[in-house]
Amino acid sequence: MDKIRNLINITDLTVEEINLLIETADDIEANPEKYRDVCAHKKLATLFFEPSTRTRLSFEAAMLELGGSVLGFSDAGSSSSTKGESVRDTIRIVGNYADIIAMRHPREGAPIAAAQKTVVPIINAGDGGHFHPTQTLTDLLTISRKKGRLDDLTVGLCGDLKFGRTVHSLVDAMLRYENVRFVLISPDELKMPEYVKDKMNAAGAKWTEVEGLEEAIPDLDILYMTRIQKERFDSAEEYERLKDSYVLDTEKLKPAKSDMIVLHPLPRVNEISVEVDDDPRACYFYQALCGKHIRMALILYLLNLIPKAGAGSASGGGSPETNAAVLRDDICCANPKCITSTEQELKHLFRLTDEKRGIYRCVYCDGEHVEEK
Amino acid sequence: MDKIRNLINITDLTVEEINLLIETADDIEANPEKYRDVCAHKKLATLFFEPSTRTRLSFEAAMLELGGSVLGFSDAGSSSSTKGESVRDTIRIVGNYADIIAMRHPREGAPIAAAQKTVVPIINAGDGGHFHPTQTLTDLLTISRKKGRLDDLTVGLCGDLKFGRTVHSLVDAMLRYENVRFVLISPDELKMPEYVKDKMNAAGAKWTEVEGLEEAIPDLDILYMTRIQKERFDSAEEYERLKDSYVLDTEKLKPAKSDMIVLHPLPRVNEISVEVDDDPRACYFYQALCGKHIRMALILYLLNLIPKAGAGSASGGGSPETNAAVLRDDICCANPKCITSTEQELKHLFRLTDEKRGIYRCVYCDGEHVEEK
Amino acid sequence: MDKIRNLINITDLTVEEINLLIETADDIEANPEKYRDVCAHKKLATLFFEPSTRTRLSFEAAMLELGGSVLGFSDAGSSSSTKGESVRDTIRIVGNYADIIAMRHPREGAPIAAAQKTVVPIINAGDGGHFHPTQTLTDLLTISRKKGRLDDLTVGLCGDLKFGRTVHSLVDAMLRYENVRFVLISPDELKMPEYVKDKMNAAGAKWTEVEGLEEAIPDLDILYMTRIQKERFDSAEEYERLKDSYVLDTEKLKPAKSDMIVLHPLPRVNEISVEVDDDPRACYFYQALCGKHIRMALILYLLNLIPKAGAGSASGGGSPETNAAVLRDDICCANPKCITSTEQELKHLFRLTDEKRGIYRCVYCDGEHVEEK
Repeated sequence: MDKIRNLINITDLTVEEINLLIETADDIEANPEKYRDVCAHKKLATLFFEPSTRTRLSFEAAMLELGGSVLGFSDAGSSSSTKGESVRDTIRIVGNYADIIAMRHPREGAPIAAAQKTVVPIINAGDGGHFHPTQTLTDLLTISRKKGRLDDLTVGLCGDLKFGRTVHSLVDAMLRYENVRFVLISPDELKMPEYVKDKMNAAGAKWTEVEGLEEAIPDLDILYMTRIQKERFDSAEEYERLKDSYVLDTEKLKPAKSDMIVLHPLPRVNEISVEVDDDPRACYFYQALCGKHIRMALILYLLNLIPKAGAGSASGGGSPETNAAVLRDDICCANPKCITSTEQELKHLFRLTDEKRGIYRCVYCDGEHVEEK
Repeated sequence: MDKIRNLINITDLTVEEINLLIETADDIEANPEKYRDVCAHKKLATLFFEPSTRTRLSFEAAMLELGGSVLGFSDAGSSSSTKGESVRDTIRIVGNYADIIAMRHPREGAPIAAAQKTVVPIINAGDGGHFHPTQTLTDLLTISRKKGRLDDLTVGLCGDLKFGRTVHSLVDAMLRYENVRFVLISPDELKMPEYVKDKMNAAGAKWTEVEGLEEAIPDLDILYMTRIQKERFDSAEEYERLKDSYVLDTEKLKPAKSDMIVLHPLPRVNEISVEVDDDPRACYFYQALCGKHIRMALILYLLNLIPKAGAGSASGGGSPETNAAVLRDDICCANPKCITSTEQELKHLFRLTDEKRGIYRCVYCDGEHVEEK
Repeated sequence: MDKIRNLINITDLTVEEINLLIETADDIEANPEKYRDVCAHKKLATLFFEPSTRTRLSFEAAMLELGGSVLGFSDAGSSSSTKGESVRDTIRIVGNYADIIAMRHPREGAPIAAAQKTVVPIINAGDGGHFHPTQTLTDLLTISRKKGRLDDLTVGLCGDLKFGRTVHSLVDAMLRYENVRFVLISPDELKMPEYVKDKMNAAGAKWTEVEGLEEAIPDLDILYMTRIQKERFDSAEEYERLKDSYVLDTEKLKPAKSDMIVLHPLPRVNEISVEVDDDPRACYFYQALCGKHIRMALILYLLNLIPKAGAGSASGGGSPETNAAVLRDDICCANPKCITSTEQELKHLFRLTDEKRGIYRCVYCDGEHVEEK
């Protein structure tokens, strides 16, 4: 029997696997009838310990269009977790009720803990500010469909680059393709973190950092907008001063290339003016459709209903012990948002990620621990 | 391709269309097997920004009995609107996940805003105190089935006639049939508004206004009960003095005709005594069954799965700009419950409804604006 | 036409019926394909007036695996009961939308009230601290599968035996089998109530009462663990002193028989250490799977889709008036958690249960009333 495959982080998938998912999604769009009963008698559980309409409905629509059915909950209030049940217990029980699970949880690393005990594939539909791999797959499919390629692109990332997990994941994913250049557009408070820049440098990718959207826009093939939250600024004055410069409107869009595409993970509040919606370059609603198609492909793949692509390293999240040699259980994770801070009897585990500098990272939340020498 | 049809208000439908829906509902009751797979591979989204069990379950049961499937949310807490997403964005995204949408929203005019951007049919399942057209269709089907006709009827409307949207809609609908007489039964505080009486007069319908249920009941073919809420009264004493006179019990029912029918939009609290439930004239639970049948017919109609009836004017709500000549965008809607007061970048729009008196009405909530001359 | 059958209490079912359900559940496990379309075009409503993930998802998975579909609500907040609708009205309306109803309600006796007016079978999925018969069926199926029998067993009940409805129901059920011995393991504050011991004595069952889990464990065939809630103790000190003695860990498990089975109704908080999960005697996650199978069997039985077993006395809850001779409606139920304290116009009813001592019990909540002589 095959090992159970999970999707916790976008890097669980090889480039070959991502390409297979994109191809499958394209085939689904072209031939929907071919797929509409392939998941008959299969069940998807959507376990949303915190609400997210779009993501949940996207998964549910995906499973229904494959002929399967859906059960689950849409917020923790209607779940047993209010009675103190651990995430692992909930997931293990639901493994008796469903063939595949999509879960969203406010705690970082929760799906990694969950995947330790499950008997069915787990899809991470967002774990706090940590990972959200199906959003990244959605972004990649949209880019692939609209630009015809995933390499040789200039990608503008605009808004909150400090806390925005979607842009971090997108960088991780796109660094695996050739000749992708990044333009980082954000206020000073919300700059891209150094460790992400380190990754870009390590991969040999070109990047520049600018404060203004206007100066950056003419060069871009892709403009990826994100929401800027007021509470992330040092002062209300600073927010007021800056907020309009990160709002995309038809005026700011004028100098852009005619085939540039505008993406946004949604929901948008006011960072893209409604007037932009009618511009052919606005692709953020089309993204929602791509999100359904790629989730259909992913469900098929994890249920072994399409042929495997080149030996994925994936499923990683589920078995942190695989490389036991470099794991330590004597370090306590200090991140208050980590699943280890609430889950009963969950062993803290760190792996060595930078031997020279003595850096260990929590296997659940990637929280850093530096070993004093 | 056909224009997308929506149902925002009961007046979106022609009499021919209503008759077709009633005929279809009757055929569904007579031949359920004929319909039980007609919506296979179709999806209904039930988007309830505020809770309403009966209405939501009625829609869901309707779609399931047609062989379709259902997804959605049952309160705004589990939706992205808590993150500040506009109704139009939510609807537009869900248009990628479902073939038809039934939405309930606390703000008046919300489905009209939603219908501007959607690519699938929208059914208004209630927008605040404004419209609730599938309730009216339910009432019409129940009357048609129990009385065999929709004309030549004496209709008693009892309870809160001032704020009760269901009775206003029922009046709108029944004025289109011949020889319908209304008996308006309510306390002084909760009398039928003048503008509804104006409509009855304009249509040449007879109506009388009484304070007591007992005096009115012997003449009625239909008694339509509604709930009286304590907080609608000027004083608690007044409420206490009057409340019992609007409670239907077996005693008050005695002088009624033997074929009178008692309707109620439900939920009932105590305005109809439980002892009345066993009376053959009590049709309010049967109404719930009719609600399912008429919603099945409506879904079929809007999905173009039954032949069109005589060229409906419908879909109105979706395109307020159609009669641009008489629209104005320089008036600001003063109704705090109107969708324009919360939806981002939604243009306020008024149409001229009474040229002589200079009356304009908001295209979303029908709020009145009188032009000073 | 057959009388509608409901399941309110485990004693509604005869031993023959329970055996039939167990056989059917075993056949479902062995031949799932045989059952996967038997409920096509049937609908289950899950009406959860208070949340319970596992129970709800277990019912939903059961119906989906039978080829049926599901609708409902997962907490009262999204139901019309917030508008003051009675349970009977909600159930009666939903009877138009579904073929069978599983309901959970915080008030004792609510499903008995509901069953008075429904036209479809009602399954009690828990009514406050009162009954939870599908949990008991789940326990019986698990025991039957793991031990091969339901008689000649030594059953340890551990934890909160005073308030734990699952252990009371399990005792009721197992007293109907031969030679079942009980070992009651609890702190003094949470001892098994006298009336349950009376039942054991009346049935001629052997029982002993101990305070420590360690001394009891070597003799047991079954160890049924329950949660001990801090707030049930007289003092925080007493709780602290005792809590660890009722936590099952690998150390305490050592002297147990190698074929003893550990059950728990779940959710567990910390009363069973996570390290026990890997022990082959730990059967509480397997219980969740059994719960799905027995609910599938029950749905089939109540929908008349499998042959009837020996003339059940069941359906009892639905018609409290059947033995009108011994019913009294002049006693008012004093239990504040009884459905009679909130439901509109619901007649209080008591039946004589002990003529000698003049004891009457509420037909809804079983609350006691002693007649002064």
